[in-house]
Amino acid sequence: MCQLLGMNANTPTDVMFSFTGFATRAEEHKDGFGIAFFEGCGVRLLVDAQSARASPVADMVRRYPIKSRHIIAHIRKATQGAVALENTHPFTRELWGRYWVFAHNGDLKGFAPRLHGAFRPVGSTDSERAFCWLMQELAKAHASVPPIDELTATLRELVPPIAAHGTFNFMLSNGQALWAHCSTHLHHIVRQHPFAHASLQDEDVTVDFAELASPRDRVAVVVTEPLTRDETWTPFAPGELKVFVDGAPLDGPPPP
Amino acid sequence: MCQLLGMNANTPTDVMFSFTGFATRAEEHKDGFGIAFFEGCGVRLLVDAQSARASPVADMVRRYPIKSRHIIAHIRKATQGAVALENTHPFTRELWGRYWVFAHNGDLKGFAPRLHGAFRPVGSTDSERAFCWLMQELAKAHASVPPIDELTATLRELVPPIAAHGTFNFMLSNGQALWAHCSTHLHHIVRQHPFAHASLQDEDVTVDFAELASPRDRVAVVVTEPLTRDETWTPFAPGELKVFVDGAPLDGPPPP
Repeated sequence: MCQLLGMNANTPTDVMFSFTGFATRAEEHKDGFGIAFFEGCGVRLLVDAQSARASPVADMVRRYPIKSRHIIAHIRKATQGAVALENTHPFTRELWGRYWVFAHNGDLKGFAPRLHGAFRPVGSTDSERAFCWLMQELAKAHASVPPIDELTATLRELVPPIAAHGTFNFMLSNGQALWAHCSTHLHHIVRQHPFAHASLQDEDVTVDFAELASPRDRVAVVVTEPLTRDETWTPFAPGELKVFVDGAPLDGPPPP
Repeated sequence: MCQLLGMNANTPTDVMFSFTGFATRAEEHKDGFGIAFFEGCGVRLLVDAQSARASPVADMVRRYPIKSRHIIAHIRKATQGAVALENTHPFTRELWGRYWVFAHNGDLKGFAPRLHGAFRPVGSTDSERAFCWLMQELAKAHASVPPIDELTATLRELVPPIAAHGTFNFMLSNGQALWAHCSTHLHHIVRQHPFAHASLQDEDVTVDFAELASPRDRVAVVVTEPLTRDETWTPFAPGELKVFVDGAPLDGPPPP
């Protein structure tokens, strides 16, 4: 199984601490990693078909504080599709003059929708197929970028028919919000004033966010399994789709 | 003015030597750089809105031998569009289940085509607008990826109406070939057996390709201004569109 990491913040924030903890798990997720940073409307996508432990690209991410308000990262253990760059998450497409970034954890069986629109997979994963279908259906449902709550409402209709094919934990962002859907495992935390210490679950690294953040900063982190051992992570319910804006979840309907 | 660098090879080849010479010119082209590597069908796009001299991303490119058969790089001096990641070349889009990479040097005046299709600019450059229009018109002209010579024929029809708006030196690749069009300045060289020494124009760096390459390797390099002082670079004629496959130019009609 792959693992997902997402970050949504009200001010550009680096993800070095969380990515360090996340990349530690790459030992058993050795078939590539990728991380996408929105910087304004632009996207910086760093991908590698080797493990996040060995990759010079991942090494740069750990050492170079790239600041962003919306980040999606993925470490891959291949289930469908060969180990190759075109099968490495996150995937990006442009729709309505905005970039969209998508990463998926799980396995979809027999998901072969008709793709007659402008979005075709380049690689051979079920994940990219699901992303292309989501983009195609979003493009049908709206003429241009709709408000976040309308997009969320459309996603709540589009996701269940895909999720019926298997496990569909995913993260999606267009640089305005972060959508996260849980089939099986996903947790989130909001870090805000008063900031505390946090110690990584898998490594002997502790950070004092109070030293790093200003009182108005707010950051939501969403991840497959909790990254720290001294913070309280909130698990998603199966079938839950949350949307994060400015570092916090928006209220939505309760999970089905 | 920006500068362009393209590479097309018959075997995956790193571009460290050429990129080192190219990045040296970033002093006066300080508004960002980008480099796209095809790896199979996948694309690794490294971009930064800071100069290739200062960027940690460029530093990684100089030290990490990423091998590819199709590379397009660009250093930017902003003429249209703010200095921001979304305005940094190369740009990428997906069409027919393939990624396309595009970078432009020049300035187009009053180029405001109708973009009614599936390709919209995210940033504010004339370059991305031209790329979106090219993608839209290619999508209209062919139902799926056509053979290289048919694509070239379509491009020969699409390019002149854009080039009429100003300077349109560009490079385009879909991971099968490299297309390069010259309005004003573009040069190419083919490096093949017997390989010689080459010394960078702008830096005190010499490389002996015979030590690095096998006798069957063949690499075409296309660049705004010659990178080395002891090789013979062939200038493009104004209005010339060349297509490179397996490290050499395909014969085409003479420039108009």
